[in-house]
Amino acid sequence: MTSTQAPTDLESYLEGTRDARLGSYADFLRFPSVSALPEHSDDCRRAAEWLADQLRAIGAEHVEVSETSAHPIVYGDWLGADGAPTAIVYGHYDVQPVDPLELWDSPPFEPVIKGERMLARGSADDKGHIHMHLRAAEALLATRGSLPLNLKFVFEGDEEASSPGLDAWLEAHARQLEADVAIISDTGFFEGNLPAITVALRGIVYAQIDVFGPPVDLHSGGYGGTVQNPANALAWILAGLKSPDGVVQIPGFYDDVVALTERDRAALADLPFDEEAYREAMGVLALVGEPDFSVLERRGARPTLDVNGLWGGFHGDGSKTIIPAHAHAKVSCRLVVDQDPGAIFDLLSAHVARIAPPGVRVEVQRLGDGRPSLTPIDHPATQAAARALEATFGRSPLYIREGGSIPICASFEETLGLPVVLLGFSQPDCHAHAPNEWMDLRNYETGIRTIARYWDELATSLG
Amino acid sequence: MTSTQAPTDLESYLEGTRDARLGSYADFLRFPSVSALPEHSDDCRRAAEWLADQLRAIGAEHVEVSETSAHPIVYGDWLGADGAPTAIVYGHYDVQPVDPLELWDSPPFEPVIKGERMLARGSADDKGHIHMHLRAAEALLATRGSLPLNLKFVFEGDEEASSPGLDAWLEAHARQLEADVAIISDTGFFEGNLPAITVALRGIVYAQIDVFGPPVDLHSGGYGGTVQNPANALAWILAGLKSPDGVVQIPGFYDDVVALTERDRAALADLPFDEEAYREAMGVLALVGEPDFSVLERRGARPTLDVNGLWGGFHGDGSKTIIPAHAHAKVSCRLVVDQDPGAIFDLLSAHVARIAPPGVRVEVQRLGDGRPSLTPIDHPATQAAARALEATFGRSPLYIREGGSIPICASFEETLGLPVVLLGFSQPDCHAHAPNEWMDLRNYETGIRTIARYWDELATSLG
Repeated sequence: MTSTQAPTDLESYLEGTRDARLGSYADFLRFPSVSALPEHSDDCRRAAEWLADQLRAIGAEHVEVSETSAHPIVYGDWLGADGAPTAIVYGHYDVQPVDPLELWDSPPFEPVIKGERMLARGSADDKGHIHMHLRAAEALLATRGSLPLNLKFVFEGDEEASSPGLDAWLEAHARQLEADVAIISDTGFFEGNLPAITVALRGIVYAQIDVFGPPVDLHSGGYGGTVQNPANALAWILAGLKSPDGVVQIPGFYDDVVALTERDRAALADLPFDEEAYREAMGVLALVGEPDFSVLERRGARPTLDVNGLWGGFHGDGSKTIIPAHAHAKVSCRLVVDQDPGAIFDLLSAHVARIAPPGVRVEVQRLGDGRPSLTPIDHPATQAAARALEATFGRSPLYIREGGSIPICASFEETLGLPVVLLGFSQPDCHAHAPNEWMDLRNYETGIRTIARYWDELATSLG
Repeated sequence: MTSTQAPTDLESYLEGTRDARLGSYADFLRFPSVSALPEHSDDCRRAAEWLADQLRAIGAEHVEVSETSAHPIVYGDWLGADGAPTAIVYGHYDVQPVDPLELWDSPPFEPVIKGERMLARGSADDKGHIHMHLRAAEALLATRGSLPLNLKFVFEGDEEASSPGLDAWLEAHARQLEADVAIISDTGFFEGNLPAITVALRGIVYAQIDVFGPPVDLHSGGYGGTVQNPANALAWILAGLKSPDGVVQIPGFYDDVVALTERDRAALADLPFDEEAYREAMGVLALVGEPDFSVLERRGARPTLDVNGLWGGFHGDGSKTIIPAHAHAKVSCRLVVDQDPGAIFDLLSAHVARIAPPGVRVEVQRLGDGRPSLTPIDHPATQAAARALEATFGRSPLYIREGGSIPICASFEETLGLPVVLLGFSQPDCHAHAPNEWMDLRNYETGIRTIARYWDELATSLG
């Protein structure tokens, strides 16, 4: 079998099965598998069981819904390519919460196709990508009876909740997971829908800041001016974490950041990126961030800090004249190599304690973290992905640094000692983590061909 | 009839009707008449109808549930004291919202008596006070067949929602409301349950600050570091309104504040006030406010600014990695003479616009206001109240400046040209506006005697 023989059979097969494929894709999207919310625990498990059934149906072996300290990991493999290399295929079947629900044009777990878009929570991040791998394997097995390499599927259920059980599971299954490369499909194309391979990902540390004042809400008339207000206190604390021009104010925060070289900066500057179009597509008044860095540098190679949510006191219609008893914020930092999430959390906690005003009690909780990662462009597995993208999308990919975090990259690199290739197909404005998430169905369809082609390329280049 | 003859009959009557009185008090408290929440509009009206029935039952005339631009005002009068002075009795039948509901030991609209306390939303602020006036008038009419002066009852339904319809209603009914004095019962005793007459009230201006960024929540990984985050922006704005030591940072904010004289400061310093006991009773770590002023000065004679609530982005369990599309805060300023609420709102808006960071759109809404007031201690109507308190509670009252706002004070003073006496009976830590609001039933019972006595005293001193 050669990689030039397969496409004909494969293409006819894929063309003939498109309707069934989209139906199955929609079935997968209907599970409200929100890992961060305990009430969706059963939904996560049902999604996992569905995936296990899918793996069995396409011919995978050793299929298992494997327990972790959190939601289960779905494992399955196909090991019939004697002497060929072995790849791990990673995706996550859990999704982000859906609030604010009222901003969705259609219910998040009732997928609909509008034009060339599949609309649903998880359509891009990351169920769509899992589904593309399943369908690529199914199509190859159906048309050739075999795969060009050995595959081990690892589908996680906690990626959106900081993967609390993944590292321990990987360590416990290290022997079972022996491989030559890990393919992680949870990224996307570049602005303008240009094929891209992500070579850097930011890490993250996620915290909650809790400010406590009086044991009950107080009348703001009777007490205003005499006690510290936890909501005002929270504002001072948050204001002290970052300056309005985007420079994080936590002492030591930037100490371990690996500086961009002139070559790095030149490579980023060469990317076909239109700041004004980007600003307009996002619908914001201005692009704001560290003054001495470009937008792409800030997004991919510089750490940052964002308030992900805040709450406290009265938030209904009209007015309620209280001093709230407490106020809270979710705060996360995106990190770059070589920042360590634990060390950054400690710096954050110490800084919050230092700038907290008198009269309130402040706590900082660590809710999750993930290490940043940087992968080599010249690795044969990366170059094989580049050839597959060029063969199917018609142009060679860009190499980009992504702002998001896939902490499990570092897990595969460090726990299993594997090179990681980030091969994802969603468009950059796909509303991941936001209302009206969508996947471009052209990218989805062509991407299935890319994945099949990539496996052929990998078998050749690593074989 | 003389004022020394009444108490015997009155006391027997009041002793014999205590159970019925508490039952009726509880009935009144069961209406969830939350004026700020549109879904309680019908409850407000039912409370108004109940009050009108009460007025008719005790013998009031011209009873009316009178429409305003907001909730109705209940009017009724008793004008049988030919040649005697006329007093307006004001109270409000609407109550504060009850959230956070989970902090209530018993449901807020299911009144329960625990020891000497009536527990329910509105028990102190302000239904208890309305009920005391009704029962005082009922008892006098039942035992004497008449009142010593003419009374005009005005019971409002929007005090907790900034009284949007009151001024226009007062103007429209100015002839009907001709009187010699307005008695407003919506205040309380001093720390230690010491009888007190409030001679100063703070004004208020209540605003909402809305910060808008991208049209939808963005993935904080993909976009963090490139766009302004509305939640961070809100924090900078709120942090810029007041310093952590309690000094409002809005330029011009203090310009119209009437400075305390040496005599004012001495009078406040003479009040039997234990700062440490006050701090401990509130359950806070420290008392915080403008460095150059005492706690009582800060509470009664200095303006301040509080965040009453804030919200935006994710606030569930766990983590959600978004840049929120928008963030909001409720902010109110307590004002003292001669600050003007409209002028202060303009200063606030201009300051917010000035300190708002780039990349977000910021709006400031005015949700309500009320003017501050200061009433003369030596007015005969104030001195009559002092004698009534001394005769019933056994000690002469303190004259205090309250931190709260009763904007309708200024309405009665300015629109109707009346002197205002603030005669209220709740304890200072009664949890007005907070969970587990309570009224001391000893203050309630003795207060009914005080009110009856006050009417006798007023008839003599203004007659």
